[in-house]
Amino acid sequence: LNLRIFGSLIVGAVAAALAFQAPGNETPEFTRDGEMVRPRNYREWVFLSSGLGMTYGPMASSEPRFDNVFVNRGAYRSFIETGRWPNGTTLVLEVRDAQSQGSINRGGHFQTAVVGLEVHVKDESRFAKKWAFFGFERDKNTATAFPANSSCFSCHEQHGAVDTTFVQFYPTLLEVAKGKGTFKN
Amino acid sequence: LNLRIFGSLIVGAVAAALAFQAPGNETPEFTRDGEMVRPRNYREWVFLSSGLGMTYGPMASSEPRFDNVFVNRGAYRSFIETGRWPNGTTLVLEVRDAQSQGSINRGGHFQTAVVGLEVHVKDESRFAKKWAFFGFERDKNTATAFPANSSCFSCHEQHGAVDTTFVQFYPTLLEVAKGKGTFKN
Repeated sequence: LNLRIFGSLIVGAVAAALAFQAPGNETPEFTRDGEMVRPRNYREWVFLSSGLGMTYGPMASSEPRFDNVFVNRGAYRSFIETGRWPNGTTLVLEVRDAQSQGSINRGGHFQTAVVGLEVHVKDESRFAKKWAFFGFERDKNTATAFPANSSCFSCHEQHGAVDTTFVQFYPTLLEVAKGKGTFKN
Repeated sequence: LNLRIFGSLIVGAVAAALAFQAPGNETPEFTRDGEMVRPRNYREWVFLSSGLGMTYGPMASSEPRFDNVFVNRGAYRSFIETGRWPNGTTLVLEVRDAQSQGSINRGGHFQTAVVGLEVHVKDESRFAKKWAFFGFERDKNTATAFPANSSCFSCHEQHGAVDTTFVQFYPTLLEVAKGKGTFKN
């Protein structure tokens, strides 16, 4: 049993264990042209919160819609420890239609089809403003970053509770940020 | 380098990889008296959906509340493959208060404090009806199962789209169940 076989077995075992736990790619991917590739498996990332018909929403409509926010697991763990977002942080905003009447439900609202997907990514070496926003059109696998003068940036810079992100609307992270002293009022 | 050391190293490497990916315990735990231990880290499990002010909710109130549903990762993966819930499935219903005015938001609803936590668990060897419901009181670490004649059971048995669970309200799983032929109308 030589060291090379030994090493391969360990690498194989670790890879198998990781594959079982994390089949999805949680690192942001970009094409050669700098377009972002649609995140896969973000539904298995960490859920931060959801809202219904929030007025600040990028896709506000007359009928209220749900927005669900997810973040990649590694960034979540890092935030829990430090109250700050690491490079590679990828926040996904999934917008879904709402329905009231369905099955046994006769009031309130539950979630139905996806109608929008927006992504907020931190990559200090790639983006002049450290973060960028991407809006994925239906059935398109890549998206171009919003221009740096778009309203996303000014609103998030002005109102983001932690590093241009709306942690004020994510109740579990809000507590962490307050505890770590990274929360801006 | 003998086989015992070799084995220990592999076990250690796998354990380290798993620990990095999954610090939380995702297997339901029970006391000797059969009480369920409050699930830890369910916020890192897989989010299924959320609703606002749904009338079937166990904690319906005059002010609409959000309900977020999470499931342990292993059960989620199994459901994606088969359209069925394995033994050990643990669904957590987290109820949160809603707020409209806050930060830049002036309408709609976003989530604030947790006001309730209910759990639906499948364990065919432990429960006569295969599944059981638990409601955790605030600040209590364990909960007793609801009696088998409680309304939870009759409603879930009568209206659950898949095996007494309300998959009709979880849009991603609804598609899977329809595809696998396990969805009851």
